Amino acid sequence: MTATVIDGKAFAAKVRGQVAEHVARLKEEHGITPGLAVVLVGEDPASQVYVRSKGKMTVECGMNSYEHKLPIDVSQEELYALLAKLNADPAVHGILCQFPVPAHLSETDIVAQIDPAKDVDGLHVINAGLLASGQKTLVSCTPLGCLMLLRDHLGSLSGKSAVIVGRSNLVGKPVAQLLLQDSCTVTIAHSRTKDLADVVRGADIVVAAVGRPEMVTGDWIKPGATVIDVGINRIDAPEKGLKEDGSVKTRLVGDCDYASCAEVAGAITPVPGGVGPMTIACLLANTVTACCRANGLAEPEGLTV
Amino acid sequence: MTATVIDGKAFAAKVRGQVAEHVARLKEEHGITPGLAVVLVGEDPASQVYVRSKGKMTVECGMNSYEHKLPIDVSQEELYALLAKLNADPAVHGILCQFPVPAHLSETDIVAQIDPAKDVDGLHVINAGLLASGQKTLVSCTPLGCLMLLRDHLGSLSGKSAVIVGRSNLVGKPVAQLLLQDSCTVTIAHSRTKDLADVVRGADIVVAAVGRPEMVTGDWIKPGATVIDVGINRIDAPEKGLKEDGSVKTRLVGDCDYASCAEVAGAITPVPGGVGPMTIACLLANTVTACCRANGLAEPEGLTV
Ligand SMILES: NC(=O)c1ccc[n+]([C@@H]2O[C@H](COP(=O)([O-])OP(=O)(O)OC[C@H]3O[C@@H](n4cnc5c(N)ncnc54)[C@H](OP(=O)(O)O)[C@@H]3O)[C@@H](O)[C@H]2O)c1
Ligand SMILES: NC(=O)c1ccc[n+]([C@@H]2O[C@H](COP(=O)([O-])OP(=O)(O)OC[C@H]3O[C@@H](n4cnc5c(N)ncnc54)[C@H](OP(=O)(O)O)[C@@H]3O)[C@@H](O)[C@H]2O)c1
Repeated sequence: MTATVIDGKAFAAKVRGQVAEHVARLKEEHGITPGLAVVLVGEDPASQVYVRSKGKMTVECGMNSYEHKLPIDVSQEELYALLAKLNADPAVHGILCQFPVPAHLSETDIVAQIDPAKDVDGLHVINAGLLASGQKTLVSCTPLGCLMLLRDHLGSLSGKSAVIVGRSNLVGKPVAQLLLQDSCTVTIAHSRTKDLADVVRGADIVVAAVGRPEMVTGDWIKPGATVIDVGINRIDAPEKGLKEDGSVKTRLVGDCDYASCAEVAGAITPVPGGVGPMTIACLLANTVTACCRANGLAEPEGLTV
Repeated sequence: MTATVIDGKAFAAKVRGQVAEHVARLKEEHGITPGLAVVLVGEDPASQVYVRSKGKMTVECGMNSYEHKLPIDVSQEELYALLAKLNADPAVHGILCQFPVPAHLSETDIVAQIDPAKDVDGLHVINAGLLASGQKTLVSCTPLGCLMLLRDHLGSLSGKSAVIVGRSNLVGKPVAQLLLQDSCTVTIAHSRTKDLADVVRGADIVVAAVGRPEMVTGDWIKPGATVIDVGINRIDAPEKGLKEDGSVKTRLVGDCDYASCAEVAGAITPVPGGVGPMTIACLLANTVTACCRANGLAEPEGLTV
C-alpha cells in the first residue's frame, strides 16, 4: 500500500477561506469585524516569525490584528494590565500571548489572566475543564487541527481505535479528549508505555506527538491506518551539504518515519505541510468562533468542535 | 486462579481512620476543625439516606457537619444565596449539593456556584481542568477511591495497561486522567467501542463504570488482571423470594460478573463492599485536604493524588 498524502497545507488554506467567508458575512450582516490580539514579550527570532505570520493571515482573512510588543524585561504587572485591557476591549475577540516568555514570567499565570472566552489558544484551565467534560469551549489549535484533518479524511470517527503517543497538556491530552468525544476508542501512550510498537499496531488512527525524530516506523503501523504526525523536529541533513557558516544543513522531520510509514498506512500527514499549517488556520477559526459567541450569533459551521 | 478480594469496606475504614488522625492533629496543633456542608433539596428517600450517612461519618471523624435542607420548590436564588454564604464561611471547608435536584434547578449551574477550593465532590469545571492538566485539584470521590484501591493493591501503576469501560464525566473520564497521571497506558472504551471483550482482554487493570449488570465476564479478563468494578445495579433476585408487598426481592450487582471474573482475575472488588464505601471516605479525605489548603498547611499524606 502507498498512503494517501493528507495535504495539510491545502486543507489549511481551505479553512482560512471558510474563515474569510464568515468574516465577510459578519461584517456585511452585523457590522462586526473579529479582532485578534497577539502579545509578544522580548525579541526571540522564532517567536517574531510566528507572530508576524499570525498577524498577516489574520488580516488576509479580513480580521483586525492587534500586535503588542513588550520589552523582554516587562514587569508582570504591566503585562497583566495589558491583558486586562484586552479582556475589556470589545473589539478584541481573541487574545494570545506568544510563548515562550522570559523566565521571570509564568506561562500558567499569564494564561489565567486571559478571559476564557477570548482564550483562542485554548490553554485556560476553564477551557481545559470544559473540554474534559464535553462542554462548549475553545480548543487549542494543534489538537483542533488534527481533529479537522481526521474528520475531513475519514468522515465519522465513531468506533475507530485511536492511539495517541504523547500526553502533553498542549497536544496529546486534548487530542485524546477530542477523539473520545468523537467516539473513538482512545488509548494514550507515553514514555512509560510498554510494547509501544504493539500498542500502536492496534490503531486505526495514530497520532504521534512525541518530539522524537522518526520514532514511529512502518512496522508499527496497521495496514490502512491513518497517521497524523504532529512532530516537528529539526535534524542534520548532511546530504544537503553545508551552510555558509560551515555547519551542516538541516531539515524538518516528524515523529514518524515518513517513508516506511507511508508504505503501510492508508493515509499520512507529511512534515512539513501536514498538521503544522493547520495550527494558525485553527487560531483564526477560534477567533471567529469567539467573536460569534461574544455577539450571541450562531457559530461558524465546520470551524468548531 | 482465584482472585484476591479487594476489601473496599475495610480499606475505606482505614482511610476514615487516617482522616480522623489528621483531624485530631489539626485541632491539637492548629485549633482548626474541618467542616463539611451538605445541601439537600427536597425529600428523596435515597438522598436522605446518603446525606445522613455522610453527616454521621463526618462527625465520627471529628469534623463538623452542617446539613442544610431546603424545600423541593426552593428558588434558584435562595439556593445560590445559601451556597454563597457557605463559600464565604471560614468554618466550612467543603460544600456539596446532593444530586439529583428537582428539574427546575440545573446541576451544572449549581456546581458552578461552589468555590472550586471547597468543591469536595470535584465536579467544578475548574477542578476538571486542573485534573486534565495535571495540576493540584480536588478529585471527585469515586475516581479517587478507585485510584487509592489500585495504588494500595498494586503499588506503582507505571507502565501498566488500563482499560476503563465508560466515559462519564463523573467516573470514566476522571479515572482515566488519574491513571494516566500515574503513568498507566490508558484506553477509554464506551458504547461505541468495537470488540470490547478483546480490548478489555489486553488490560492489566480493568475499571468497569458502565451501569450494565454483570456485563463484563471472566472470558474478557486477562489472567491475573486487577478488576475494579464501579457499577452498582439493582437486579431481581427471585432466589431470595418475595417482599412483603408481593414483589420479587432484589440484590446489588456490579458491572462485572463477579463469579466468572474472580476465577480469572488476580484481584477484584466485590459489589457491594468494593468501590462503594470508598466514595464517602474520599469525600472526608477531600474535606481535610481542602481545610489544609485553605489554612496554608501541608496536605494530608496518602489522602490526595
Ligand atoms: N504546530 C504544530 O504542528 C505543533 C504544535 C505543538 C507541538 N508540535 C510538535 O509535536 C511534538 C510534541 O509536542 P509536545 O508539546 O506534545 O511535546 P512534550 O510536551 O515534550 O510531550 C512529549 C510527549 O511524548 C512522550 N514521549 C517522549 N518520549 C517518548 C518515547 N520514547 N516513547 C513514547 N512517548 C514518548 C512524553 O511522555 P512522558 O509524559 O512520559 O514524558 C510526552 O508525553 C514536538 O515535536 C513538537 O515540536 C507541533
Ligand atoms: N459510589 C459508587 O460506587 C458509584 C459512584 C458513581 C457511579 N457508580 C455506578 O457506576 C456505574 C457507572 O456510572 P456513571 O455515572 O459513569 O454512568 P453513565 O453516566 O451512565 O455512563 C455509563 C458509561 O458506560 C458506557 N456504556 C453504556 N453501555 C455500554 C456498553 N454496552 N458497552 C460499553 N460501554 C457502555 C456509556 O457509553 P456512551 O458514553 O457511549 O453512552 C457511558 O460512557 C453505574 O452503575 C453507577 O451506579 C457507582
